Formats: sequence, structure tokens, C-alpha cells
Amino acid sequence: MQAKQLEQLLHQEIPITQALAIEVLELEQKNILVKAPFDQNKNIHNTAFAGSIYTTATLAGWSLLTNYLKINDLPGSVVLASAEIKYQKPVNGDIIASCQLPNTDELSQFHQQLTKKKRGRLTLEIAVTEEEKIKAKFIGQFAVV
Amino acid sequence: MQAKQLEQLLHQEIPITQALAIEVLELEQKNILVKAPFDQNKNIHNTAFAGSIYTTATLAGWSLLTNYLKINDLPGSVVLASAEIKYQKPVNGDIIASCQLPNTDELSQFHQQLTKKKRGRLTLEIAVTEEEKIKAKFIGQFAVV
Repeated sequence: MQAKQLEQLLHQEIPITQALAIEVLELEQKNILVKAPFDQNKNIHNTAFAGSIYTTATLAGWSLLTNYLKINDLPGSVVLASAEIKYQKPVNGDIIASCQLPNTDELSQFHQQLTKKKRGRLTLEIAVTEEEKIKAKFIGQFAVV
Repeated sequence: MQAKQLEQLLHQEIPITQALAIEVLELEQKNILVKAPFDQNKNIHNTAFAGSIYTTATLAGWSLLTNYLKINDLPGSVVLASAEIKYQKPVNGDIIASCQLPNTDELSQFHQQLTKKKRGRLTLEIAVTEEEKIKAKFIGQFAVV
């Protein structure tokens, strides 16, 4: 998929992403960059809302994995099983979430699970950054079912 | 605050809560019930979206604590420092998040921190239920700063 195609898919299939004004800035096989603009996602303290930060990170992980399945013609749907997030510093502007697929060993194990059992699990780390500083760290366990 | 007052505060100060169509169903000093309707918060699998489930839980915790400060004339603003969530089963309808303040010991310790240091931390557990079954469990560390 191209970044814009993925963005359209999100807006169509997960309606709340339209209100968050989610943009897919970059999409490659092994990495993704997702943005939620500040104005739609601010809170009472005039910083980015914790729920929007989490949601943007979730969408980055879900999208990267969904794209990986598609590219590799693998079966199944991606769901988030559990996650944890640490808000290290306030985000004062747009929310930018970035995610890379893990190293080759972990990824090929996941790939094998999927081809053998048609199910698999993968942990993804997602960073929310502002001016290249990490503001929040998200770790999600994604499942393919 | 009354439930409707709190709902208005959320809609005004955290704009994305309007798009999520957040409703505060119940608000008492020690417990809260917050709803996000299904239609605005569904995902590609036609179940409730993981990001909306998390956000509804976050708003329940934040609101209950903000109301507690107000009632008890305590200083400070509530922020979410970190959280974890487990999605145990899909939510097939409206998202309902419920939260109770912890037992008296924990609460009075928190109360003392706030009066002495004007800062404090409290862990809140929030359950997302459907037809009285728990579908997701959220644990959040809230800070008053």
C-alpha cells in the first residue's frame, strides 16, 4: 500500500480516525510515521491529549503490521491484545508516532508462526516524538487472528 | 460537579471527546461511569476500536480524580503518567468504562500528599464492561501536578 491508500483505509474503516485527522506521513515495508495534528487532539492543559497520543501509536503499529501481511500475502487480521504506555514529557504540538518492525530473527519467527498456524503475535515499540525528542513510549502486543 | 456538567467540561476542553460522543452516565464522589457509543467508535472488524476503549477508560479516571480534587478543594491538575491495558474480549456494542476510587488508606495517603506537597500520584483501575462482563482492564498512574 501507499501511505495515502492506507490513510484512506483508516478513515473509511475506523471512523474516529477522521475526527483525529490522522495522516500517514510515511509507509515503507519496515517502518511507518503517523501524525495526529495538535488542534484536533489537544487537552485541557493545551498539550496533546493522552488518549490521542495512545491512539496514534496504536494506529501506527496496527497499520505497519497490516501492511506487512498484505505485502507478504499472509493471512489474518491484526488486533491489539495489550499495551502499555509511558508519557515522559508533554507533547506541545502535533503527535508523531513512528514504528519499525523488529529485527530479522523476531520477524521471521512471527512470519513462520503465521504460515504454519495462521496465527501469530508480535510486540512492537512505538515512539511518539517532538522535534526529535521522545515524549512517549508505547509497547503493544499485536495478534494476528 | 454533576454528570452533565462534567460531560460539558470534557467536550469543551478536550475537543476530540465530542467526536467520540463521550457521555458521563454517572458521577458520584467515589465512582464514575463513562460511555462512548458504538457507531462513532467502531473499527474495521465491526467491534469497538482499541484506541476508543483506552480513551474512554482514561477519561473515566481523569474525570473521577478531577472531580475528587474539586469536591475536596484540593489544588492541582490531573495528568496521566503511564497506563497499561489488556483487551480480554472484543466489545461488540457501546464502550462503558467504570472506575471507583481505591480504599480509604490509599486515598487518605494521596490526600495527605496533596495537602503537604501539592503533588500526588494515584493508581486507578478501570474496567470496560459489556452486559456486565469485563472486556478490557485498564490500570493508570495518574499524577496531580
